[in-house]
Amino acid sequence: MIPRFKLLLLFFLLFLSALYESRAQSNRQPNFIVILADDLGYGDLGCYGHPTIRTPFLDQMATEGKRFTQFYVGANVCTPSRAALLTGRLPIRNGIFGKRVVFFPNSANGLPHSEITIAKALKTKGYATGLVGKWHLGSKKEYLPLSYGFDSYFGLPYSNDMGKVGSFGPTASDQAARVNTNPPLPLYRNNEVVETEPDQRQLTKRYTDEVLKFITANRSKPFFMYYASPFPHVPLYASEQFSGKSKRGLYGDVVEELDWSVGQILKKLKELKLDKNTVVVFLSDNGPWLMKNRLEEVGGSAGPLYEAKGSTYEGGMRVPAIFWGPGLVKANTVSTAVATSMDILPTFLNLAKIPLPTDRPLDGQDITDVLNGRKDKGAEVVYYYDADRLYAIRKGPWKAHFTTHPSYSPEAPVPHDPPLLYNLEVDPGERYEVGKKHPDVIEDLRKAFEKHRAGVVAVEPLLDAIVE
Amino acid sequence: MIPRFKLLLLFFLLFLSALYESRAQSNRQPNFIVILADDLGYGDLGCYGHPTIRTPFLDQMATEGKRFTQFYVGANVCTPSRAALLTGRLPIRNGIFGKRVVFFPNSANGLPHSEITIAKALKTKGYATGLVGKWHLGSKKEYLPLSYGFDSYFGLPYSNDMGKVGSFGPTASDQAARVNTNPPLPLYRNNEVVETEPDQRQLTKRYTDEVLKFITANRSKPFFMYYASPFPHVPLYASEQFSGKSKRGLYGDVVEELDWSVGQILKKLKELKLDKNTVVVFLSDNGPWLMKNRLEEVGGSAGPLYEAKGSTYEGGMRVPAIFWGPGLVKANTVSTAVATSMDILPTFLNLAKIPLPTDRPLDGQDITDVLNGRKDKGAEVVYYYDADRLYAIRKGPWKAHFTTHPSYSPEAPVPHDPPLLYNLEVDPGERYEVGKKHPDVIEDLRKAFEKHRAGVVAVEPLLDAIVE
Repeated sequence: MIPRFKLLLLFFLLFLSALYESRAQSNRQPNFIVILADDLGYGDLGCYGHPTIRTPFLDQMATEGKRFTQFYVGANVCTPSRAALLTGRLPIRNGIFGKRVVFFPNSANGLPHSEITIAKALKTKGYATGLVGKWHLGSKKEYLPLSYGFDSYFGLPYSNDMGKVGSFGPTASDQAARVNTNPPLPLYRNNEVVETEPDQRQLTKRYTDEVLKFITANRSKPFFMYYASPFPHVPLYASEQFSGKSKRGLYGDVVEELDWSVGQILKKLKELKLDKNTVVVFLSDNGPWLMKNRLEEVGGSAGPLYEAKGSTYEGGMRVPAIFWGPGLVKANTVSTAVATSMDILPTFLNLAKIPLPTDRPLDGQDITDVLNGRKDKGAEVVYYYDADRLYAIRKGPWKAHFTTHPSYSPEAPVPHDPPLLYNLEVDPGERYEVGKKHPDVIEDLRKAFEKHRAGVVAVEPLLDAIVE
Repeated sequence: MIPRFKLLLLFFLLFLSALYESRAQSNRQPNFIVILADDLGYGDLGCYGHPTIRTPFLDQMATEGKRFTQFYVGANVCTPSRAALLTGRLPIRNGIFGKRVVFFPNSANGLPHSEITIAKALKTKGYATGLVGKWHLGSKKEYLPLSYGFDSYFGLPYSNDMGKVGSFGPTASDQAARVNTNPPLPLYRNNEVVETEPDQRQLTKRYTDEVLKFITANRSKPFFMYYASPFPHVPLYASEQFSGKSKRGLYGDVVEELDWSVGQILKKLKELKLDKNTVVVFLSDNGPWLMKNRLEEVGGSAGPLYEAKGSTYEGGMRVPAIFWGPGLVKANTVSTAVATSMDILPTFLNLAKIPLPTDRPLDGQDITDVLNGRKDKGAEVVYYYDADRLYAIRKGPWKAHFTTHPSYSPEAPVPHDPPLLYNLEVDPGERYEVGKKHPDVIEDLRKAFEKHRAGVVAVEPLLDAIVE
């Protein structure tokens, strides 16, 4: 038997140690990690209802945190969505739109240096900042991540199909043309190309290692890690450990490896006792790329939502989003609050006690109180842009489509007057048009639509210029 | 301070009491509860990905138990699906099919008395058996539940739209005709009508009370409770406590009240310390009734699946299914094993150590080892019947449609030769027909299709006869 006083002493020491740990964590500014999947659909995770893709780590992350069911991104394709996330501003304000929908290897521009990214803002309070993975906001040297507040960068500067292999254009000839003209896919370490055409099967493991090293190296100061996976954007690659393992085929293999990667990160935070003072966000940049009628296995699923990447229907812009952070994010909760990727910047800045920029409009809002469970209401209005054209808005449960267009279709956009009206909370699949029953709602949304358009100052489109 | 020996004694007594409790529970034959929702779609619960219906109790049941993602019912509409569940046999074998798709108030027949229901089988080992809710296997006195092994019955004998109010036929004129000819909706206690046209807003609460009373009354003997909710079949009714509470509208209110009802039952089992020796199954009888183009708010959602109630696409016959039973069902697991509602009878009989009937073919199999986690593989083949016509089969991940027909459509069924082929594990939404790539698979499924048809002995259809 252990003598009683020794037992008491042991408990006391354990208590002191726990108290110290807890205070040590909460006295520091919180750490932030954003994990961004590429083209992952609303329905592609176990906790969002996919029947055969297994995502135990993300499901557990949801159980330990807050899973959002009405979370939006700022654009329906990659480049403008990433610009919106990092700046808290709609693409129409930061210029990341054009006839070309994203940056390509031969694009001349990048994100304007005047934009304040999450990384740049956090650096003002001494945060260590790192980006691992996909950038896609400019690939000329002056537009690489180190010019935007990131201390370090390791990854591909644009999509994983923009090299010599596995390019996926909208048509076969377009695809062939790109493979011919693209330079070999560059892998950067900071501002230097350290490899070309890296073995993409190893990317998830290599990126995960980089993220874990960054966390370990910065464990004693506040940090911000932006981990932007290249997957499940096509071409799909999984490591040997995951290849052929998912019932969902290669797409499932790739998502399951990404799930593993997230699990590794949360495990490392717990090991280093950083879990009580770190907020981790997992989300996708836009809806799934369906590859309609071309490649049935490689396109993801928007679950119950209609349409996909490139569309302003829900499937294009509503994404899976899980926030995790014991103590900061209320555990085991599902939120139906409307929120957007542009809320991340103001929320992080508030948690880090950094004032928001006052010299420019922001399109996101601080959702700290939604995360900690004090309320369950977020954005009042959501804007659905396609390039510089406002296609639709959501206000409360109502969505009005003023223009529609099927994703990746050669057809012209179709204007609607009166707009098509759906109640998204009753009918998330946008199946039942109900405008005739609700003329008052249509008028209200029309006013909000016009008010927003009147308030946006047009800037120059930046996506179209090409390097000569 | 409590003296140490008292503390030790206390722990010892707690340990003995826990040991006794556990042995007392596990030495008894297990109790069984089947909770059957009506027309609940695959996508209508939080844990199956619905964005705005909140089902915390069912989500928790899934966390404490096993959630199936490829679980099927024996038919795509109510009456034959219930017959299949209770007998472990396809409708083609027990006669529950016809030109009329279900029993109506004026139907002359019922389930054949020669059928062995779960209740009748469990009675051979002294089980207390009760049915609360919807029967729908015959409403003449000789076809009421007490003739099929149930000790007690409280509920409506058929669908909640088959009375004088709120009838929903496929067309408006059909609907009006039914309201005129139907007798007032009868509420039975055993073999007696105790009310007509009961206030349906109170049904979930009243049924829940009945179930809780049954459990409490039978706490010291093995029991089987079959709780068949009338909802979310139309017309939809929720109690005052739930009305107007869900963002999903009335349909959501009704599902959220059903979720509450399930929560009450699991709570009662824990209170009575029956939880370690009771298996609870929650499932739906078929896919959602979409009410296409008629009533946008009252139709459920099949989530990522295609089509709905009345169809042999996945949306018609794959349902949410959660098994719960600490000690008997492995907790916090998701199973992609293919299983069916006809597996419930052989599984319960095995757990209760009752031999299976040997004088007739069963279409289900014992899935005890799937439930306890020893394996994750269930049925090899799934059959999709529409009345007596075999429309499609699934074998492994593959599904071949030999005939298709949109749900509740006046169009004629369309035969397919070669059959349409889908890989359900890669493409659960049945979007990408891949027959041309897999002629060998088509041949394999064609053989399984013919073999099954050759092995089924035709019986008389029982759904069509009408009381003169």
